[in-house]
Parts: sequence; C-alpha cells; structure tokens
Amino acid sequence: MSAPAYRRLSVEQRRTQLIEAALGLFAHQLPEDVSLDGVAAAAGVSRPLVYRYFPGGKQQLYEAALRSAADELERCFDEPHEGPLVERLGRALSRYLRFVDEHDTGFMALLQGGSVVETSRTHAIVDEVRRTAAEQILAHLGAPEPGARLRLMVRTWISAVEGASLIWLDEDKQPPVEGLHDWLLDHFVSLLTITAAGDPETAAIARRALAREEADGRVAGLVRRLLPVVADGAHLLAPPEG
Amino acid sequence: MSAPAYRRLSVEQRRTQLIEAALGLFAHQLPEDVSLDGVAAAAGVSRPLVYRYFPGGKQQLYEAALRSAADELERCFDEPHEGPLVERLGRALSRYLRFVDEHDTGFMALLQGGSVVETSRTHAIVDEVRRTAAEQILAHLGAPEPGARLRLMVRTWISAVEGASLIWLDEDKQPPVEGLHDWLLDHFVSLLTITAAGDPETAAIARRALAREEADGRVAGLVRRLLPVVADGAHLLAPPEG
Repeated sequence: MSAPAYRRLSVEQRRTQLIEAALGLFAHQLPEDVSLDGVAAAAGVSRPLVYRYFPGGKQQLYEAALRSAADELERCFDEPHEGPLVERLGRALSRYLRFVDEHDTGFMALLQGGSVVETSRTHAIVDEVRRTAAEQILAHLGAPEPGARLRLMVRTWISAVEGASLIWLDEDKQPPVEGLHDWLLDHFVSLLTITAAGDPETAAIARRALAREEADGRVAGLVRRLLPVVADGAHLLAPPEG
Repeated sequence: MSAPAYRRLSVEQRRTQLIEAALGLFAHQLPEDVSLDGVAAAAGVSRPLVYRYFPGGKQQLYEAALRSAADELERCFDEPHEGPLVERLGRALSRYLRFVDEHDTGFMALLQGGSVVETSRTHAIVDEVRRTAAEQILAHLGAPEPGARLRLMVRTWISAVEGASLIWLDEDKQPPVEGLHDWLLDHFVSLLTITAAGDPETAAIARRALAREEADGRVAGLVRRLLPVVADGAHLLAPPEG
C-alpha cells in the first residue's frame, strides 16, 4: 500500500478521492473490467476502506463516478450570455469533446449500452445531461420556451454531437479533434439556417445571431468556404419552367 | 382460442406468423409488458405451440422479431441508383419514418436501452442496420471507399436521423411526419454542403449531385427558402478590416 493511504482526509475528501480514482479507471476500461481492488490500488487505499464508503460495491461507485462526470458535462455549457453565439457554443463544445477524448472507453460503454452496470438510474443521469444541454443552448438562443421545430433542432444537434463523438472514437479519433469541433459547429450553423428557412421563430433567432457575427468571425469563414460549393448550384435559382 | 389456430400452415409459415404477432406486440408495448400468452393470443394459437417454435421463450421471440425488423429497415435504402440523389434518399427516409411511426414503443425501448431483453446480440443487430444504411448511402453517393470526413458525415446523419426519430416520438410526434421528413432531408443537403466546404472528396460528390438537381426539385426549393435567411448575412461577405 502506498503513502497516500495514510494521509488524513475528511470524509468528503476521501469520498471525492475514491470517485476520482474510479472515474479514471472507468474512463479507459469497460465497466466489467474494473474491480474494487483496482480502484483501491489506484487510490492507494485498502479494499475494506472502499467498501466502507461504497457499501454497494462497484455498482454504487460506478453511479457516483457517472454522477460526477454528469456534473462536469453539465458545466460545459455554462457560458456568459454575451458575444457571438457560435463562439460561445464553440467553447462549450471544446469542453465536451475534451471530456469525450479523456473518457473514451467509458463514454462509449455508457452510450452504446449493453453494459452490466446500466440501470434505469444511469439512463436517467444521461438523459438529464442531454436535457440540461438543450436548456442551456436554448437559453443562449434567447428562447426559453421554444416551439416544436426549434426544440427538435437543438435536441437533434445534441444527439448528432453525441453520435459523431461515438463514431469519432470508433474511427480511431479521425479526423483530428479540432476538425471534428469545427465541423460540428458548422453543423449547428447549417441546422439553424435550414430550420430558419421553414420556421418563423427560428428565423428571428437566426437573424439576431447573424447580426452579431463579424466579418472575421467563424460564420463568415464558413460562408466564404461555402461560396465555391454553392456556385455550382446557380441553375437551381432559375425559375421553374412551364 | 380463435379460428386461425386451426389453419394448416407449413413450419416456415407458422414461424413467420408467430414472429409477426410478436412484432406487432413489441411495436407498441415495452418488452417487459409482452407475455408469451399475449403472443399466443395475438396469433390465435396455444402457448405450447409458441414454445415449440421458440423454446428460448420471450427472449428468442424478441430476437427473431428484431431480426425481422432489421431486415425490413435494411431494405429501406434499396433504391435504383438513378435520378436526383435527394429524391432517392427521400424515398428511403419515408420508409424508415413509416417504420418508426408504426413501431413507436418498440423503437424507443430498443434504442434508448435499459430493457431486460437487450443483449450483445440485439446490439449487434442494431449496429448492423446502421452499418448497412451507411454503406447503401455511400453507394448512392458513388463513394464505396470514402475518406474519414465523408464517412463521418454519412454516419453522423444516420445517427441524427435516429436521434431525431426518438425525439419526435418523445415530443408526441410533433411536427407532423412530413415536416420531420423534409427537415431531415434538408439536414442531409446542408451536412453534405458544409462537409464539401472543407473536404475535396465530398466537394466532388456534392458537385455531381448538385448538377443532377433540377430547378423545380427539392434542393432548388431549399435554396429559395434559404435566400431570405442568408440575405441578412451580407455583412459577413465584406473583407475583414485591418
């Protein structure tokens, strides 16, 4: 047993230390491969001490580690409501993708399902993270009580970010994370735009967001990169024949 | 017991009849609420007969029903490789959303996870459906061996369609299914476009696809609806100051 075991920690500090050790193991190993001995070794404490804090054993430690991860994810979108919208979202997305990168195996095991430690409680925690992210993005959009299409748009983007993160892990983290980040932000801008094309509420929000963007900003960069692509579609602007 | 029990069916016909009865129940009830008695009643046969065909009981019937559903879903993208790309995708998407609409509870239970009947085998079947859909879409795009960004784009769209379908069911099927269908197609066009803006392989495909679109087609309609939205962004085309 290593030295840290003998440090005097308060109950809360000890609990936090054990959860962090567990989170570190669950991040890169499948839940079924994590043992309480492993958690005790990683924290530099005895197995009985782990059981004293988590009498429910691995399942209880897993849920506590997941709770801690969920709290971290929910802080991702906690951004001041000022400046260009897409910059704010970009900072939140960076934090989210850093989490995905640092907890790769655990993130996949949790979201792909089928793990032995999944319960209705773990599902409820994951759903809560999604719901909180949607509420925070809608607050940034200035739409605390959105209509069906705007809500569908925001929730679908969150689902696409989650899906793209899993796919990115499955594709050995290709393209590089910066490329994934910028593409997911472009994805948000394009989803906002096509939704605005059919929904007046979203159109008003897109107009407000666009007005705050600057000529050297991220959206302007996207617009310039899009011009050569859409130039080939000029024939679609001709009025239909007949 | 009702009359159909006494119809003479071949082994294969009987098996198909039982799977269809099971699929009908799993479509609108949670797996834990479906009983073999219920399946026997829905098929108009005795419980021992169900057990004779499915000695593994409910779990085996569930997996057979899922296999049958997966085969139906995999046929969704089975489309002739001719005509505008977005029209082909639109027909495939209609079939997919009809399936979602007709199997609402079963679709949610399966994809949201946490159900008692989930196993590594049921996960493998769901993954196979996703993989087949990606391969079929990439074949329609004329890219059987895609690079990382194009593959990420197609897989992310499939994941977004799945996510949006779950959200749509959770939001009591709002907006109406036609609106969801058209929005998901617009979503595909916009994802293809922003990916093309940063990836030469996707740009070549987008150019080919765009050339086949017609002035009275779906993409042209989207372009016309987008014009008023992007008109507000004219200030982004000015060269950056300084």
